Amino acid sequence: MRISELSKRTGVPVATIKFYLRERLLPPGTPTARNQAVYGEAHLRRLRLIRAFTGIGQLDLTGVRQLLAAIEDDSLPLTELYELVDRALFPLERVPERVEGTQRVRAEVDRFVDDLGWIVDPAAPGRDRLTIVLATLRRLGCDCGIDFFAPYAEAAERLAVHELDLLPSNGSPPGRPERAAAVVRAILLNVAFAATRQMAQEHHAALRFGECPAPAGSG
Amino acid sequence: MRISELSKRTGVPVATIKFYLRERLLPPGTPTARNQAVYGEAHLRRLRLIRAFTGIGQLDLTGVRQLLAAIEDDSLPLTELYELVDRALFPLERVPERVEGTQRVRAEVDRFVDDLGWIVDPAAPGRDRLTIVLATLRRLGCDCGIDFFAPYAEAAERLAVHELDLLPSNGSPPGRPERAAAVVRAILLNVAFAATRQMAQEHHAALRFGECPAPAGSG
Repeated sequence: MRISELSKRTGVPVATIKFYLRERLLPPGTPTARNQAVYGEAHLRRLRLIRAFTGIGQLDLTGVRQLLAAIEDDSLPLTELYELVDRALFPLERVPERVEGTQRVRAEVDRFVDDLGWIVDPAAPGRDRLTIVLATLRRLGCDCGIDFFAPYAEAAERLAVHELDLLPSNGSPPGRPERAAAVVRAILLNVAFAATRQMAQEHHAALRFGECPAPAGSG
Repeated sequence: MRISELSKRTGVPVATIKFYLRERLLPPGTPTARNQAVYGEAHLRRLRLIRAFTGIGQLDLTGVRQLLAAIEDDSLPLTELYELVDRALFPLERVPERVEGTQRVRAEVDRFVDDLGWIVDPAAPGRDRLTIVLATLRRLGCDCGIDFFAPYAEAAERLAVHELDLLPSNGSPPGRPERAAAVVRAILLNVAFAATRQMAQEHHAALRFGECPAPAGSG
């Protein structure tokens, strides 16, 4: 198909597609004439993937580039692919504060992960992030122990298994299409969880505090 | 305390504190002399809150300003406060694509929420986001029904109740300190959940595919 059809089928403006081509996020099409090329289903799939990353995934182009490269690097195990997704979604360099007593909290987090029986990279980004969250909550006056996170871990485990069940179960490591699907699902389903969480918060806050939205014009 | 001590106790540079003062994110201190002021515990708490929002919460100053204003607007029910947190974390204007067939998917989402028995604002941001996620997943080839989200809703509900249990349970709507705490927890615990999810994915992917990280120098 021509670039105009690629644009029509994905809703991505032609100028943006040309930008992705220049940036090599999209491979070049097959040349047909001077300054003309045609594109195939692979381009369509790739373009949809990029738009899912930059749209609802809110990733910047650096993150998109890293994830596309990681999907295509077959030597990279799925476990590390998940770590990369996580680093792209929650770049730790954007967390400038050094929270006091972080080392002690980190030891609590490591023990928590061990007690769950999870085999996790000692450098996994989740450890750092859970540490910063707990340290920050305490600085803000929350009297919460590490066990406060037990229900989060339980829910996370159930959902991780639910998502892995979508991958082929013949035991061999997933191929590129499945790796791409696993990455995009890791991103989108994080958003889906947050969406259900927002609605659950709203429902239960209303139940608990009997709140109704203030009528228009009041307040 | 002087601005220098405020800086020391929070790890926020003096120049940044002055910026927050100019931007009125922090109220002015009590003047003691020409160009001198002292700050109290309220400033310390507020500064920590701002840093949690901009640091691990990854919010921009617009989001910070909106949330601070919403916390102080006592006429705004907690349910709407949660909606605002969600909009700040997942600004929908950053999702440019119009996914085909979205209206039909939205009807599925609305029915799903009804079937859960949740009372949720028809304009709640979670509805839109869940719609876009499901429509995008299908565009990318995922053969998933709306029921795929049932375990997400179940987990979200359990965690929402877990978090609401931290608020005072005398039935009266929470005051400002509790509203601030609810907002910061909604933000931080979203990150905490994602952190546990990353580790659970890593653990279960390794279990399922027997993957080990590639030895250094290979590949």
